[in-house]
Order: sequence, then structure tokens, then C-alpha cells
Amino acid sequence: MSHNSFGHLFRVTTWGESHGPAIGCVVDGCPPGLRLSEADIQPYLDRRRPGQSKLVTQRQEPDEVRILSGVFEGLTTGTPIALEITNQDQRSRDYGEIAQRFRPGHADLAYHLKYGVRDYRGGGRSSARETAMRVAAGAIARLVLGPEVVIRGAMAQLGADPVDRAAWDWDEVARNELFCPDPTAVPRWTETLTAVRKNGSSLGAVIEVVAEGTPPGLGAPIYGKLDADLAGALMSINAVKGVEIGEGFSAAALTGEANADEMRMGPDGTVEFLSNHAGGVLGGISTGQPVVARFAVKPTSSILQPRRSVDQQGREVELVTKGRHDPCVGLRAVPVGEAMVACVLADHLLRHRAQNPAAPTQARLPRN
Amino acid sequence: MSHNSFGHLFRVTTWGESHGPAIGCVVDGCPPGLRLSEADIQPYLDRRRPGQSKLVTQRQEPDEVRILSGVFEGLTTGTPIALEITNQDQRSRDYGEIAQRFRPGHADLAYHLKYGVRDYRGGGRSSARETAMRVAAGAIARLVLGPEVVIRGAMAQLGADPVDRAAWDWDEVARNELFCPDPTAVPRWTETLTAVRKNGSSLGAVIEVVAEGTPPGLGAPIYGKLDADLAGALMSINAVKGVEIGEGFSAAALTGEANADEMRMGPDGTVEFLSNHAGGVLGGISTGQPVVARFAVKPTSSILQPRRSVDQQGREVELVTKGRHDPCVGLRAVPVGEAMVACVLADHLLRHRAQNPAAPTQARLPRN
Amino acid sequence: MSHNSFGHLFRVTTWGESHGPAIGCVVDGCPPGLRLSEADIQPYLDRRRPGQSKLVTQRQEPDEVRILSGVFEGLTTGTPIALEITNQDQRSRDYGEIAQRFRPGHADLAYHLKYGVRDYRGGGRSSARETAMRVAAGAIARLVLGPEVVIRGAMAQLGADPVDRAAWDWDEVARNELFCPDPTAVPRWTETLTAVRKNGSSLGAVIEVVAEGTPPGLGAPIYGKLDADLAGALMSINAVKGVEIGEGFSAAALTGEANADEMRMGPDGTVEFLSNHAGGVLGGISTGQPVVARFAVKPTSSILQPRRSVDQQGREVELVTKGRHDPCVGLRAVPVGEAMVACVLADHLLRHRAQNPAAPTQARLPRN
Amino acid sequence: MSHNSFGHLFRVTTWGESHGPAIGCVVDGCPPGLRLSEADIQPYLDRRRPGQSKLVTQRQEPDEVRILSGVFEGLTTGTPIALEITNQDQRSRDYGEIAQRFRPGHADLAYHLKYGVRDYRGGGRSSARETAMRVAAGAIARLVLGPEVVIRGAMAQLGADPVDRAAWDWDEVARNELFCPDPTAVPRWTETLTAVRKNGSSLGAVIEVVAEGTPPGLGAPIYGKLDADLAGALMSINAVKGVEIGEGFSAAALTGEANADEMRMGPDGTVEFLSNHAGGVLGGISTGQPVVARFAVKPTSSILQPRRSVDQQGREVELVTKGRHDPCVGLRAVPVGEAMVACVLADHLLRHRAQNPAAPTQARLPRN
Repeated sequence: MSHNSFGHLFRVTTWGESHGPAIGCVVDGCPPGLRLSEADIQPYLDRRRPGQSKLVTQRQEPDEVRILSGVFEGLTTGTPIALEITNQDQRSRDYGEIAQRFRPGHADLAYHLKYGVRDYRGGGRSSARETAMRVAAGAIARLVLGPEVVIRGAMAQLGADPVDRAAWDWDEVARNELFCPDPTAVPRWTETLTAVRKNGSSLGAVIEVVAEGTPPGLGAPIYGKLDADLAGALMSINAVKGVEIGEGFSAAALTGEANADEMRMGPDGTVEFLSNHAGGVLGGISTGQPVVARFAVKPTSSILQPRRSVDQQGREVELVTKGRHDPCVGLRAVPVGEAMVACVLADHLLRHRAQNPAAPTQARLPRN
Repeated sequence: MSHNSFGHLFRVTTWGESHGPAIGCVVDGCPPGLRLSEADIQPYLDRRRPGQSKLVTQRQEPDEVRILSGVFEGLTTGTPIALEITNQDQRSRDYGEIAQRFRPGHADLAYHLKYGVRDYRGGGRSSARETAMRVAAGAIARLVLGPEVVIRGAMAQLGADPVDRAAWDWDEVARNELFCPDPTAVPRWTETLTAVRKNGSSLGAVIEVVAEGTPPGLGAPIYGKLDADLAGALMSINAVKGVEIGEGFSAAALTGEANADEMRMGPDGTVEFLSNHAGGVLGGISTGQPVVARFAVKPTSSILQPRRSVDQQGREVELVTKGRHDPCVGLRAVPVGEAMVACVLADHLLRHRAQNPAAPTQARLPRN
Repeated sequence: MSHNSFGHLFRVTTWGESHGPAIGCVVDGCPPGLRLSEADIQPYLDRRRPGQSKLVTQRQEPDEVRILSGVFEGLTTGTPIALEITNQDQRSRDYGEIAQRFRPGHADLAYHLKYGVRDYRGGGRSSARETAMRVAAGAIARLVLGPEVVIRGAMAQLGADPVDRAAWDWDEVARNELFCPDPTAVPRWTETLTAVRKNGSSLGAVIEVVAEGTPPGLGAPIYGKLDADLAGALMSINAVKGVEIGEGFSAAALTGEANADEMRMGPDGTVEFLSNHAGGVLGGISTGQPVVARFAVKPTSSILQPRRSVDQQGREVELVTKGRHDPCVGLRAVPVGEAMVACVLADHLLRHRAQNPAAPTQARLPRN
Repeated sequence: MSHNSFGHLFRVTTWGESHGPAIGCVVDGCPPGLRLSEADIQPYLDRRRPGQSKLVTQRQEPDEVRILSGVFEGLTTGTPIALEITNQDQRSRDYGEIAQRFRPGHADLAYHLKYGVRDYRGGGRSSARETAMRVAAGAIARLVLGPEVVIRGAMAQLGADPVDRAAWDWDEVARNELFCPDPTAVPRWTETLTAVRKNGSSLGAVIEVVAEGTPPGLGAPIYGKLDADLAGALMSINAVKGVEIGEGFSAAALTGEANADEMRMGPDGTVEFLSNHAGGVLGGISTGQPVVARFAVKPTSSILQPRRSVDQQGREVELVTKGRHDPCVGLRAVPVGEAMVACVLADHLLRHRAQNPAAPTQARLPRN
């Protein structure tokens, strides 16, 4: 059962509310003997951290992670790794309005209908603050995968404005605050987003994550397909409304001959593909090509524009969501998307090894 | 763990290969006391069945389902329901070429790299034949959901040609062989698909599934979100490369005020939404609005156009996939998509009930 | 969730009722490339099969197993293995009395209270007939474990009469109908059981299963301990009321110095134990010593002695359970116990490999 | 998968090592709307706490639990409940000897063989300290079950010395430090245990847990039987080597007529049993009778008597385990056993409700 856990052999359970005393997670199933300290995790959290520019929420917290178990003398022990971040910036304020009213586009009403009770402070459990723990777990997943697997994400589209794919430069992503891989788009997007923020509005985005070096054989058909698990993992990120693998929705418009990736032999006895429409997955199993996933994030629902809604007493109200909000939650979703991909791949690597301990790391044909 | 099972409380395990003696599934967790016979399942299988028109594969089998357990005197007993279909049309033929060669766009290479051994006859386990059992399980899921929940699917786009949404007519779907809801698109699509088939090529499609009457409160955040489970379930269908909920990828281009669905009170004390960009899910939980999911199917990879590939011995080859194939697998994916949505909803209905036995079926606010 | 499945990576799902058309199971997670045919499974089923002597139920069926999927050209493919046995001996008879009355010591009332509807024919799902599929799955589990792991079971006690452990001879077990390892006990037990049968009564038993060659490192503390999983698996066998590992309940009466198994180095660099009070498991993890489990089976509840009970209408009745019954179900529980141990070990072997692909098969200390 | 989690709908994940900074657990699946604070949990922890008498380990810590999530304004919210206890008494000392040597009867060698690395301080993860979190989770499970279900445990046997069952008095259990229900045994046991402690030795025990008021219908045959889940849960407690339900191993020696519990109608339309050899479970499902489970705990392995062993370098050594140890770990296992029973029952209550929202709480026959 998965309420608050994901993964099977590399299993992550998160807990915590936006304005509770702390948030945390338990990573269960991490192999023993990996070198791990807070320093392996913190940089990923710092990338996701709010308060770094005017273009994301101004909530200011260091988000310092602590490892509370599962590591001894610098090595993982195979026992559960507990991570925790203390919530520091719990602004004491009046939640009266939000406490009783359902913000359009938020989980407020849904939680109220499901549970009858909810922690309304900052969205409680439904807050994107939970994704900090995904990022932390993702850092450990990367260690499980090893340095050969390189997982990188970037903003591929802001609002209706996509990057120029010809200009895609992974190194550019770290150089700007927008996780934008296209240097020509950076000033354009900055302008757009600044205007949106000033206007009290928000925009959506499309994020792309690529996992190079993914070994072949990951994925457990029929109902643990690698692409299906990626889809579920990415759709579980706050505000995500769509997921694509490889060619994605564009595949619908292609002919079979245009879409199917042809193969040839590489110089070293491995199979090479001439294209990657499949996004590295065939029949739910990785082929050794880069795994390519994309997801769409809806515009932040917390906006300064007044909207019609109702309250818990069934009265119709007009609602303005004040406070510190991201004009585009897509920005901070980039490291979260990377982390989810890392966790899914790590889980499937362990699953694959269970059945095939000598699993190859490249698409090399077994000797018959 | 899920290799060949999905769902938690309504749990489906399928087995069988395309050209083995039979395919089957076990539905575990179905509540007792539901009236069930083969007649409740067969009509859904008949909709998915091949051999019904020139526009789908000509494999001819009755696909007659048998219930082998879990039903006594016409009622489900709460014990596992085993369903089975005998494979009749196992054409005796020479698989020599396919046996050794990896068809581009197929799972052949991926299975070979993962398992080292594979049943190449008709794609073996990776064949879309497996989806017959999903459809059968979906029929039982519908009984669990009850008649208030109406789940319907349709082709929303063939190749690059979408339907006219203003002309959408659910009744039209059953009137044509293309699961097309738009009567004006039917002749156009028929022409397109006939040409594609004659040309030995194929096309992709986009399918939309809508679940009206979905009760609020379904979904188990954070890692069993209703939309995440739908995404995983739909992405696990053969050839699917993208999934959307509600506005989907289009949400990226909207502003927050355009995307967030406003609310008002309905005449009977329920909450009404003024729009449904969310596709019936907020924070991973159903709101009582219709659940709307879409998925993209890539063009069939089995085509008569010659393609470059390699064989098991590492030789480069040119490959033509002969045989009986669908020019657009999207057609038969419509009942499969409906079935997956039904199974996910049934699973979450049972999960919701476990925590909240008196769960309401409408978005009515609890009395405070 | 486990209603009718057990194991995680080696996962068995069974289905079927005593008097339905068939019983079956799906074995999911079996590694690919293992040589498997019906001939590997049938001998174990034959050992469990009823109708072989006067001391077990006279139900006569060949219990011929068929493999319906997951094997291609004699090798497992990594896809689910479906096994099926047709129910042949479904005696057409009047179940009127049993249909309405709750047999003392049976699951009748419990199923009625839980489900409201039940298949009363032969006990339906609660019949020990289900255990045939456990035995079949166990045969596959043995292949996963390999020939180094030898799992054998025997009756250690009939009624209040234990074997003489000094006379324990594993070869003797196959020479008598009572799975008795002590040749001196065989005539004594035969006499006892014949008398019990003639008297229309029944007796319980204690069965011991030993797994020699179990590699060290199996078991997933804290909540997947090897001994805990064995206890759950054995307790799930029909009529079992107690489970012990190693010294079991006798350990309560020992002092710490008498109970803790001392260690020394073996000639080949492995660790040797001077005793095996632990039954091969410490801290929930196998040590490389033989795994020793015992379980107690209650006397068959189907007896010819009249007993007080009630019927579905709430009337008090006196009940005699006619029909073909085992005077001691413990006999046929021996192969079932072996099978459950095999399945648990196979599951944990795969789990162990996932985290430690180079897991050693002997208690050899890692080089520091 | 369960490494460090148990339960399905009421799911507990624990983490932490004996001498790490903290231990904790996450309780996922607790229904919303239950009143919960630390005060509901602390009394159970206080019962299990060490350092309370000379007869248990002298480790002195308050074991104060903190709720970090899942509760808002005093009510559970349906989101995961994180509990945490800071480890205070981490005595700074030299672990040199234990660090390199495998204590007989401990998990040291098994962890070393499985993981290659282990936290040897106080047993690390294999320490009974982990059971504090089981007790904390059990307190929440009791709230889920409600006040009608009363779960009580007691020592039924110390070493080879059982209580006089005729003198069994539940109220007596709280009056002595030995969890002994028989006032006549208390002085006898005190004397025995004092002598054992002075001698640097230890003794085992048998603990009995009874759950009165258990509603009928709990248990998910075939592989989630209530008794099987209880057996697995109790066997997972440190040092447990045997588990019994109801009559347990004694059932082997009974005849069918002596063992099967007869039934009659109660005055209020419920079914009554004339005896409870079954221990409240038939066919894996609760009948409404008290659920009775017993488990055997081996003698503490940490003793002052020198024992033969080996070290990590493969040298034979003689080992004395100094430090603060329980002469009988059975004492503190009583609240742990109660907690495990509570958690299993709560899990099955939720599972039962999922399929049968109107599940009755008494063994009342459904109207036909």
C-alpha cells in the first residue's frame, strides 16, 4: 500500500506538514557500504530551496538536513536512513481566512471532503514543502545508481514559450535562476516571469529530465514498467498534470516508420539506436539509451487575483490568496523531477539485480 | 511488488503469452455479494476483440472468458476471481526470422537484454493480447464502483487529426468502428486509416477517458494520488507514451486565474465547480467532478516498411514485420483505457472506505 | 496487500475452491533461464495427493498440474508462471446439511460472518485443497534455491507421541505413509491412527522442516525477518496453531549460556557453530546453519462424533460431519510445510541479491 | 516489501539504532479525526521503559515521545504520524571488544555476513530499543480499535516455571514488576530472577496476550490470515522463538472432538462458543471470541558467563558480554507483544472495512 511511501526495494516514506515542527523521510532498502553524509544531500536541497531569488517564494529557511539513522562511520549499513529537516520559518500569523475557505485550484476542498479535518497552515501536508524530502531521497538514489548514471533536468517551456532545442546547453541550467538550458530564452523568461509576479498572477511550465547511462533491463513488465513507474512518480509531484516519455504526445502524429528507432551494431559489440523516439524505454524496459521524461506543471493556484469560492460553512466567498508564493512552481520542480527519476531508477536497479545479479550495465548482447 | 499485478485492495494479476495455451488473470479483493457472471464481462471483451473490421488486426478468436473461482451461485464470495481465455488462433508458422531479430519499436531487444530468453511468438508476454485480461478485470471493477460511476472512452485524435470537441457525442462512439465521438470525423478517419493500412504503415492516436459520478475523496496522497495512479496505470498500456489529467500539457500555458476552477454552492448543498481544468482531481484526491484522463498511443511498430535492425548474433539486418497488425493500436486501446480507469477507481474506493466507512458519494460538505 | 498472495520478489498468488472447476496459482518473479517442466512439479504434488492410503482422505484425483505460461522451450522466461489443476472428483451430492450449518472447528461461521456468502461445498476456499498449489509453487522455489539447499520435512509427533530423535532417519520418511523419520514409531503410529480413524475421531501432529544449505544473509530485519516470515507462512497452513524456530518454546526454560550457540572457525575459513539452538536464524537473518522450523497441526475438525452447533437461521443443531476426511491432516501437511519454507527462502534469496548481488553462499567472513 | 515496515492499511515504519541520535517511526494509514496527543502514547512507553527495577537493564532514559506530524489541533488528520524519541543515554565508552567480536546468540555475525558493515554500539539496529517504537505505534492502534477492544498481556511462564492459570488475575499484572498475573508466583519468580541476575546468567519466558472484544471478520485468507499475521508480528520481536494461537502446540495431542469449539445461540442473537481452543480464530478469520496468542522468548544472550566465539579477523576468542542487560527480556516483551497484537488487529479492521463498510462488531448472524 502506498499512502506516503513509494518504491519497493528502494523505498521512501515521507512525513510532515508545511508548518509542523519538522518534515522528514525514511529511506529503506539502500544497499550497505555506500559512503554517505549530509554533504551528499545538502547541495540538492539547496537547489530546490525557496528564497533564493525574486522569482520564487520568499520563505527563508536553510533547510538543513540531518541523518538520524542508517549510517555508521560514514557508511550506509543497510538499515533505514532517517532524514529530517526542522521547520524554522513558521510565521506566526492569522490563518483565519484560509482556515475556513477553500482556495480554488488547491487541495483544500479535496482534503476536507476526504478527511473531514485538515491542517490548513500553508497547505499542511499538501504543501510542496514535502518535495524537499523527495529531493533528499533522490540524492541517496543517485549514490545507489553510481556515477555512470547522470540525471539532469531543465525547464523546457515557460508558459507557452518553449526553449530552442537547438540551443539546449546543460551547463547553462546552473547559470541562471530559471533552470533554463537555452541562454537565449533566459532574458525573455525573466521578463515574462517578473511581469507575471508583479501582476499577482502565475504561469505553468514543462520540465524535461534525462537520465544518461541508464543500464538496460530496468523495468518490471507488465505492471511495474519503467515508464509507468516514472509516470506515476512524476504525476505525484505537486501541480503536475501531464507526463510524457520520449516522443510523448507527439508520437500520436508520427507514422510507424518515423517513430520506431532503428538499430545497428556499435563498434564495441553493443547495440546502438539511430534515434530515441522511445525515450529509452521499450516494452516497459530500459534499453540503455538515455531515459527521457517530460512533465507539465500547472500555474501556481495561489494568486492575488480574486476568485469565487466557498467556505466550510457552505457560504459563497471571494478569495485572494495572499502570502509568499512562486509565480511558477515549475522552477523548483526541476530538482524534484530529477529526484523522482533517480528514485525510480534506483528501485528498478535493485529489482533487476534480484532476478539477474550479473546484470550488464550496457546494451551488450548476451553470448548465445 | 508489482511485476504482473496492479492495485492494492482491488488487485489484478495477469498472466499468459500471446501464443501460449491461455491467458488469464486473478482479481483479488473484490467485495463479496456482487452479482457476477461471464455475461457481465464478455461484452467488454467483445469491444476490444480483434478481427472485427479491416481496420484492426485480423486475428480471429472468440475470446470467450471463463470464471474459474470466486463466484458461487451467481455471487462473488470475497475469494479470488480467476478468469481465463483459451488462445485459439495460434497459427502454426515459421517464426524463424522474428525469433532471431529485434523488431524496431518493439520490446524484443529490451526483453532479450533483461531476461536473456524470450517467447518471441507474437511478442510473447509483451503482446497487447495481455490487455484482454485488463478489460475483463475492468468489467468487475465497474461492478464494484456501481452504476453511478459511468466510465467512457473515445478516440480524441487520430494521427495529427483531432476531433471537433464541439461535436463530441458519446453515443456516436458505439456507432462506428473507430471509437470516434465526432460523426464528422468518422469518414475522414476511415479514409486516413484505410490508406495507412494499404501503405503498410501505421498511425498513433490520443484517447480520452471520462469517469462521471466519481465520488469525492478517492486518492491517497502523497504517493498514491489518484492522478498518479491513473498515470501509472495508463502508461502501462502497450504503446502509450504520454498521459494527461484534465487540462494536461495545456495547463502549462495558462495563467493561474485561468486554470484554477472556481467554486459555488449547488442547489442541494453540494459544492459545484464552474470549470474542470483539474480533471476532477486536486491534491491527488477526487473532488466529485468528472475524472478526465487522456493518453497518447504511438503508431504500431509492426509495419511492412523495411527497417534497419540487428539480430541476436549481433548482425545488422533489414527487417519487415509481416503478419496481422493494427494500423492504429489506439482503436483497441479505448476499452483498455476505460478498464484501467475503472480498476484504479475501484481500488481507491476500497482504500477510501477502509479509512472512512461512511464516505459520501457526493461533494457535500460535512456538517461541522 | 496479501489476501491470496505471499512473498515479495518470489510471489505466489493462489485461487480456486475445493469443488470449483479448477484450482491454480501464479508464480511471479521467478528468475529467467531456469529449466522447468511439469515433471519438476508433479512428484511433489503426488506426495501430497489424497487417496493414497487408508490413513488419508479417500478423495481420488490425479492432481495433474499444467503450466500455462512463463515457460518457453523448457526455460522460465521471467514472466508469470501460471499453474492449474482441474478438479475432477467433484462428487455430485447433497450439501443441504452442511450448506446451512456451521461445523465446529471449521471456518464456516467465520466466513459467513465476514463475507455473508460462502461456497460451502467441501469447505470452498478454506479447504486444504488450496495447499496443492503451495506445493506446486514450492517445487519452483526449490529450483530458484538450487540443489545446494535441501529442504526436508517429517512428522515429529503424532498426537502426544513424539518420535525418538536419536532414531531420526531422513531416508525413512519416504518409506512409510506417515512421513515418519523414526522406524520404531511407524508401527505404533499406524496402530494409533487406524484406531482413531475407525473411531471417527482425529489427532493432531507436529511437523518439522529443515533447510540445509541455506546461505547466510537471508532475512530483512526488522519486519521481514526470516523467522517471522517463516512463522507467518507456516501459520497460514490450514489447521496450524503453533510455530517454532530452533529451540522454540523450550528456549524459555534454558539459561543464556545453555541457549546461545558458541562459534569457532572451520577448516576452510568459515564460521562454525557448536550447536543450533537458534535454528539457523539470528536477529532475523540466516547464519548458514540449517534452518529448523516446527509447526503444530490441530486434529481434523471433520469427525463422525456428534457436536453441538448452530445453523444460518440461528437454530441450535447437533452436527456430524460425514464424508471423506483425514484422521490426521498433519500427514499431508509435511509437503506443504516444506513448500512454504522453500517459497520463503526463495523470496529472501532474491531480496538479498537485490542489495548484495555478490552474496556469498557460505558463512565465510568478508575480507576486511 | 517489508524491511522496516509492517501492516498494510495501518502501516508502521520504524528507524533508528540503539546509540544513534534518535529512534522513530512513521504510522501511515491512521484514520482521521481521532483525538491523539503524546499523553495517549507515553504511558505505554513508560511500561516498557528500562531502568525501572533491578530486574531489567539499568539504562536510564525518559523515552519521551514527540509527535512531529499527522495531528492538528489534537486530531489525527489522515496524514502520516511521525513519532520520535531522542536517545539520551548514549554512554561514551570503549566498544573495541564488541566492535570486532561476534557475541554468541546475538545478531552480530548475521548482520556482518549480510551487510558487511554494522553499527555495533549496543547492537545497533538489532537492539531491542527498536521495540519502543512498536509500543508507541501500538498505542495509536488501540485508538483505531476503540475502547471495546481490550488488549492485555502477561508473563505466563518464567524459565520452566508457569503461572497457576486458576490464579490468573489481570489486575495483578500491574501490581508487580514481573507482569505476572499470578500473585502466588510473584515472590517465587522474584527470587529466581534475582539469583539469575547475580549469577550473570539469564532466563527465557512465555508471554500471553489476549484481545477481548475483537470484532468478527478480521483476517484475509489465505495469505493474510489473522493468526498468520499475528505469528509473523510476534516472531519479529527480538528473541522470540515460538508462537502459538489458542491451544497452540497442545492442540496436537487433542482429539478432534476435544479440540473443536462447540457453538450455541446467545440470548441476544449472537453465536456463543462453549470453549476457545481456537484462540478466537477459525480459517484465519476472527470469530468474535477473545483472540489468544502466546510467544516464547529465549534467554538474554548478553551474559557474564564466558563463551567461545570468533572475531571479524577470523580468530577464535572467549567472550564475556559486560554492560547493562536484562536477566529476562521477556518482562519488557509484554507491552511489545500487546502492541504488535494491537497493530495487527487495527490493520485488519481497516482491511475488513474496505470490503465491508458496515462490518458488525459482534458475532451476530446476518439476516438471510
